[in-house]
Amino acid sequence: MATFKVPFPAPSPVEDAELLRKAFQGWGTDEKIVIAILAHRDAKQRLQIQEAYQDLYNEDLATKLQSELSGEFERAMYLWIFNPVDREAMIANAAMKKGLDYRVIVEVACISSTNELLKVKQAYQALFMHSLEEDLASKTSGNLRQLLVGLVSTYRFDGKEVDTELASVEADALHDAIKNKASGYDEAIRILTTRSKAQLNATFNKYKDEHGTSISKDLATGLPDPFFSAMRIAVRCTVSHQKYLEKLLRRSLNEAEEDVDDNLCRVIVTRAEKDLQEIKDMYEKRATNETLAHALERKASGHHRSFLLALVGN
Amino acid sequence: MATFKVPFPAPSPVEDAELLRKAFQGWGTDEKIVIAILAHRDAKQRLQIQEAYQDLYNEDLATKLQSELSGEFERAMYLWIFNPVDREAMIANAAMKKGLDYRVIVEVACISSTNELLKVKQAYQALFMHSLEEDLASKTSGNLRQLLVGLVSTYRFDGKEVDTELASVEADALHDAIKNKASGYDEAIRILTTRSKAQLNATFNKYKDEHGTSISKDLATGLPDPFFSAMRIAVRCTVSHQKYLEKLLRRSLNEAEEDVDDNLCRVIVTRAEKDLQEIKDMYEKRATNETLAHALERKASGHHRSFLLALVGN
Repeated sequence: MATFKVPFPAPSPVEDAELLRKAFQGWGTDEKIVIAILAHRDAKQRLQIQEAYQDLYNEDLATKLQSELSGEFERAMYLWIFNPVDREAMIANAAMKKGLDYRVIVEVACISSTNELLKVKQAYQALFMHSLEEDLASKTSGNLRQLLVGLVSTYRFDGKEVDTELASVEADALHDAIKNKASGYDEAIRILTTRSKAQLNATFNKYKDEHGTSISKDLATGLPDPFFSAMRIAVRCTVSHQKYLEKLLRRSLNEAEEDVDDNLCRVIVTRAEKDLQEIKDMYEKRATNETLAHALERKASGHHRSFLLALVGN
Repeated sequence: MATFKVPFPAPSPVEDAELLRKAFQGWGTDEKIVIAILAHRDAKQRLQIQEAYQDLYNEDLATKLQSELSGEFERAMYLWIFNPVDREAMIANAAMKKGLDYRVIVEVACISSTNELLKVKQAYQALFMHSLEEDLASKTSGNLRQLLVGLVSTYRFDGKEVDTELASVEADALHDAIKNKASGYDEAIRILTTRSKAQLNATFNKYKDEHGTSISKDLATGLPDPFFSAMRIAVRCTVSHQKYLEKLLRRSLNEAEEDVDDNLCRVIVTRAEKDLQEIKDMYEKRATNETLAHALERKASGHHRSFLLALVGN
């Protein structure tokens, strides 16, 4: 469920565009108006506002927002203004600039449904004139390449059908790969990158039943290694991406980490229109005596804070 | 250009279905009528005839054809009756039964455009309740798996844009992989499976310019090996699939090979509605003093011959 509130009836896109124009005029921008409008419009409405703004002022609203706003607030608003599919494509592309943030790539690949991922890849090509696969493959190598490129490439079967015998065989193959590293990871990569989500969930359940620990826990032991970490994120996003994102959010809000604000902003902006309510409920169940809104008030500041609070429904 | 002839105006699907029904009745089937109708209807018309047949007689025409016909003629007609996308999915699935015919998989992956391949994968899932990727990955291993699964997985960029510097760098990487086998094939697989067809063609041209021989020739030297052979077919289908298919046809018609008839039937049935005219023209230019029709008369027999002759436009 989405978290932010949309007024009903909403003003027309032209009214919104005119108000935004006013907010940009004069000395400094009135960020409050920008938030009051854009944080309370859904993807379709935001697109209509962009179109109205272009028609009225012959100017691109996204570019205008970039020049009028700054810092974290600008980055968050620039992501928000786009439709979810273009936004995911932009997030994936950004994750390959300045080094590779494989965690974001795994999220994009494993949280999306088969057809959502296809649309993201189509949007990626329209925006960047390359395939996501070729850009990713050229920036990675070895097992990590095989895993990541496999995750974004496969057009997975989306059905609920499960083969329990196969689940058992492949649970053993995964266990063998994780525990007995000498045998290589080809089979583990094959299973994680090609099986349907329903089949994988059955396999992960068999893994726990037959080997006593969850695959996610087994992947967490040992030295930190991007390949193992990427496999673990793929598993966690396949089991419950909300649970995974809640943990990201919780760490961002409660620990001093380098990438805290990227994660915080990405989770809130990308999920606000989808299932942030479920993630918020999970957060509030797990964090003692603190609502997500309180945590954001404590952690973020300025317009960035106001914007995120509006997106989470405060 | 297609080769077979469709009457204009064509009889209605109901008339065709009724005539087919008559052809099936009595002692033995009148194969001439079956060919006279079905070899002269395009994919849309064949679908309408299937629907009319189902409505009129509450029976599946494809299944009926299987039971009424036999041998090579039955197999050819059974492929022909379906629309091209379902047919490709069925061909790919069959290529993984009884061993793996990797050549067919490479053809399906590399001849189709990006969106055609996507539709084939969607049809595959609807027909077999699995993804093509998972079935293929579970039946292969090592470099061959990486190559084949990569070829069917990637949603390739379909644009005409070419980066000539990149083409030069990747031509060297391919040359290095092929000539200096110790360095492994990861880079060659990455390039062949993820780059756009336009970019690959530029790369293959650079390869020949910079290294003196074509990549296809370099891949043909050495011991026969499925992985090298699959790379070579991928290259040839990317450069000119018509040229590749013409060669297949020529070998089928002029050499005694095990898989001759499969290739012959597959090339004619799958291309009759697309570009068989171009392939036929190439054939007739290369084969001395023989039209494709003459070669088919010599090589095939019975109803199978009549059917193939009708498909090639005789």
